[in-house]
Amino acid sequence: MSKPSLARGTRDFLPEEMLKRKYIFGIIEKVFVRYGFQCIETPAVEQMATLTGKYGDEGDRLVFKILNSGDFLTATSDADIALAREKSSKTLVPLICEKALRYDLTVPLARFVVMHQNSLSFPFKRYQIQPVWRADRPQKGRYREFYQCDADIIGSGSLFNEAELLGVYTDVFLELGFTNFFIKINNRKLLHGIAEIMGNNSQTLTIVLDKLDKIGKTGVSNELLERGFEQAKIDILFDIIEQTGGFEEKLQAIKSIFQAHNVDTKGVTELQTIYDHAKNYANVLAHLQLDLSLARGLDYYTGAIFEVTTTDVAMGSLGGGGRYDHLTEIFGLKNTTGVGISFGAERILDVLNELNLLQNLNAHTTKVLLATTNDESFGRGIAELQYLRTKNINAELYPEPTKLKKQLNYANDKKIAYVVIIGEDELKTGILTLKNMQDGEQLQLPMTQIAEILK
Amino acid sequence: MSKPSLARGTRDFLPEEMLKRKYIFGIIEKVFVRYGFQCIETPAVEQMATLTGKYGDEGDRLVFKILNSGDFLTATSDADIALAREKSSKTLVPLICEKALRYDLTVPLARFVVMHQNSLSFPFKRYQIQPVWRADRPQKGRYREFYQCDADIIGSGSLFNEAELLGVYTDVFLELGFTNFFIKINNRKLLHGIAEIMGNNSQTLTIVLDKLDKIGKTGVSNELLERGFEQAKIDILFDIIEQTGGFEEKLQAIKSIFQAHNVDTKGVTELQTIYDHAKNYANVLAHLQLDLSLARGLDYYTGAIFEVTTTDVAMGSLGGGGRYDHLTEIFGLKNTTGVGISFGAERILDVLNELNLLQNLNAHTTKVLLATTNDESFGRGIAELQYLRTKNINAELYPEPTKLKKQLNYANDKKIAYVVIIGEDELKTGILTLKNMQDGEQLQLPMTQIAEILK
Repeated sequence: MSKPSLARGTRDFLPEEMLKRKYIFGIIEKVFVRYGFQCIETPAVEQMATLTGKYGDEGDRLVFKILNSGDFLTATSDADIALAREKSSKTLVPLICEKALRYDLTVPLARFVVMHQNSLSFPFKRYQIQPVWRADRPQKGRYREFYQCDADIIGSGSLFNEAELLGVYTDVFLELGFTNFFIKINNRKLLHGIAEIMGNNSQTLTIVLDKLDKIGKTGVSNELLERGFEQAKIDILFDIIEQTGGFEEKLQAIKSIFQAHNVDTKGVTELQTIYDHAKNYANVLAHLQLDLSLARGLDYYTGAIFEVTTTDVAMGSLGGGGRYDHLTEIFGLKNTTGVGISFGAERILDVLNELNLLQNLNAHTTKVLLATTNDESFGRGIAELQYLRTKNINAELYPEPTKLKKQLNYANDKKIAYVVIIGEDELKTGILTLKNMQDGEQLQLPMTQIAEILK
Repeated sequence: MSKPSLARGTRDFLPEEMLKRKYIFGIIEKVFVRYGFQCIETPAVEQMATLTGKYGDEGDRLVFKILNSGDFLTATSDADIALAREKSSKTLVPLICEKALRYDLTVPLARFVVMHQNSLSFPFKRYQIQPVWRADRPQKGRYREFYQCDADIIGSGSLFNEAELLGVYTDVFLELGFTNFFIKINNRKLLHGIAEIMGNNSQTLTIVLDKLDKIGKTGVSNELLERGFEQAKIDILFDIIEQTGGFEEKLQAIKSIFQAHNVDTKGVTELQTIYDHAKNYANVLAHLQLDLSLARGLDYYTGAIFEVTTTDVAMGSLGGGGRYDHLTEIFGLKNTTGVGISFGAERILDVLNELNLLQNLNAHTTKVLLATTNDESFGRGIAELQYLRTKNINAELYPEPTKLKKQLNYANDKKIAYVVIIGEDELKTGILTLKNMQDGEQLQLPMTQIAEILK
């Protein structure tokens, strides 16, 4: 038997890593529930038709396809196979694969809402924390199987929802221990307005502007020039997105520019309303930034867009989202607006690790290990174990009497805080040894007192 | 766009269903942690080589294979394709699929232990609650994507581990509200001994005996006769497995029979030791049954075997497990014994639903909805919402002022216990209306007092 290995881009999570992951997911979930979001789950395996064409050509390539089970070739004629052989793999795929692994949680949400629209009560506020799969080239921090954590509100156009999502972001990042984090906000309608002023198409503008972080102002300027934007108009663009000042000051400035060009100011009004709502939230404004260059690559946004970053560690965005008016249309349900956010849980984990904010997470695991040295004390150990458990103390008995060193090592490896030693002397006297594994201190006490200390 | 649908044998879980699932998984997980098990996760996607050949021919067929991404056909020569075409789908699969979806949590555990043996501290006690996939024909209660919940102890031969697992089973089923549940126990070594007495091979005996529930005593007798067992020996078999009396009484009877036939009584001794350990657990013995006909189909068990059933509802086993001495050998690691149990979470859910034991699970979701009727009261609603949240009350504001009836319906659908109504009168007086959605009772109170009631 050859040595086993993992599939590329996938990971095992050992107990210590799982404690960290559960801690992060736990805080995100707690805040989701606090804000009235309800948990749903969708299957990992979706019909290929549900996913195909929803993520562009690139996405279609990156979706993992599942081979039809059974005798899949007989379902396709010889001619099909020959055709496929001639025309490359791409032609063969739909003939032999009807299912695929979910690529994100957003398209499955749209499918879910359309299929269950009569069972759901709207506005429908759902959260979902599940893995997704992408056939991307694996690299540092990019995996082929990773978790997404999404919260969305479907069926309400009220801008109060945007404010709530800002509240969710703020609560989560504060509770995780972040201090220097920023929620950037913009509105797709502003980008449309700017494109209108520039006399060009807003989709191109969005795509190019999305690269600002990577290629800088010169890069964006050059690319816009290449794509046919005029220099004078590009100057207007930077005049707008480089506005300085506070949130409302910047909004006011843009409003004036838009009005001067006779462009609809709806995006400005929306952002002002969201800002006014956000004033009611204790900590949101301290972390909220109007970033007029924020574009977000995805096609489907139509209103406010968000992105969370931190200055504590060099790392891309820790989350993003926005309002989308047409998502369920891909499955035939019109006039259903939605707004949502996503947490980049894997990146958040990396940042918290770098900031050393993920220590001492084993509070809810085993508190004490009972160590025994012979058959008689092992028998006593089984009884004491039950006693500690009736006191709601998470306790373990090393499963056999053996050398004390081995048992102490086990406690150490598992980060168990205390060891109770039941040796021959202890059996005679009824006074047991409680060892604090942190500082090595040992106390001689009866079990009743030990239980008090451990509680 | 055609109507979207789910892949066969997969399910969406709506919020109400998720509450039930989380409740069950939560209790199982809490007990796992109480007994010192640590959580791990393995990827859904495994190398095909890891899974192939581990579940028999039938299993190999039922594993979902993932198509290689990119231009998978060029990796195979024309000759390969031609060969594949000739020899059926089975030949083509390994040429175009290198990965597959996990079929259970046991083989991944063996891979995990072998790969991470130097990072783990033994005895390694892990639990894992994750979905698995099987290309089975879907039917009532059988899905193609479903969760497994496993706990295993790797690297300790102590029979105390078996007693701990009986404790886990007992705690979980009691805490879920079961009363009439039974943990059947047997030992593969007894089945070997019986086979030895019968002068036949124990594998055949195990396979046939495993069908006792389905085909009855006559069916088993006939099949054993067909397979070459003598009638006199079959009588001995039923003499043994139909022993009546208490646990220890039955054990003693078998011991005598085994001794009379000069057969090793190690299996008897093991069961006696497990029973003696189990005496220390408050509730285990009341639910433990020695079932000498229990066989468990799986090849890999070598010692104690378990199965949980209930008489409350007609339903197959709610869990099973046992000791296996050679599992990690499939990946080259010898001399590593293990013992584990599994919960059939999907079936447990079905039973609890039938027994009406899954009511009122929304305690941790939204406690109160704020309802408003105009822009001014909506503004007040945003402020009151923050106030309630600072009091740690999970509160929601309906995202826009609208008809009261619509907002009350929303609260009803979401099973929110209270609604606070903020209308024009309430704005003037500062006295708000608190409506209990259960009994319809309405109280007029200031927000501070409402918060007290909701806490």
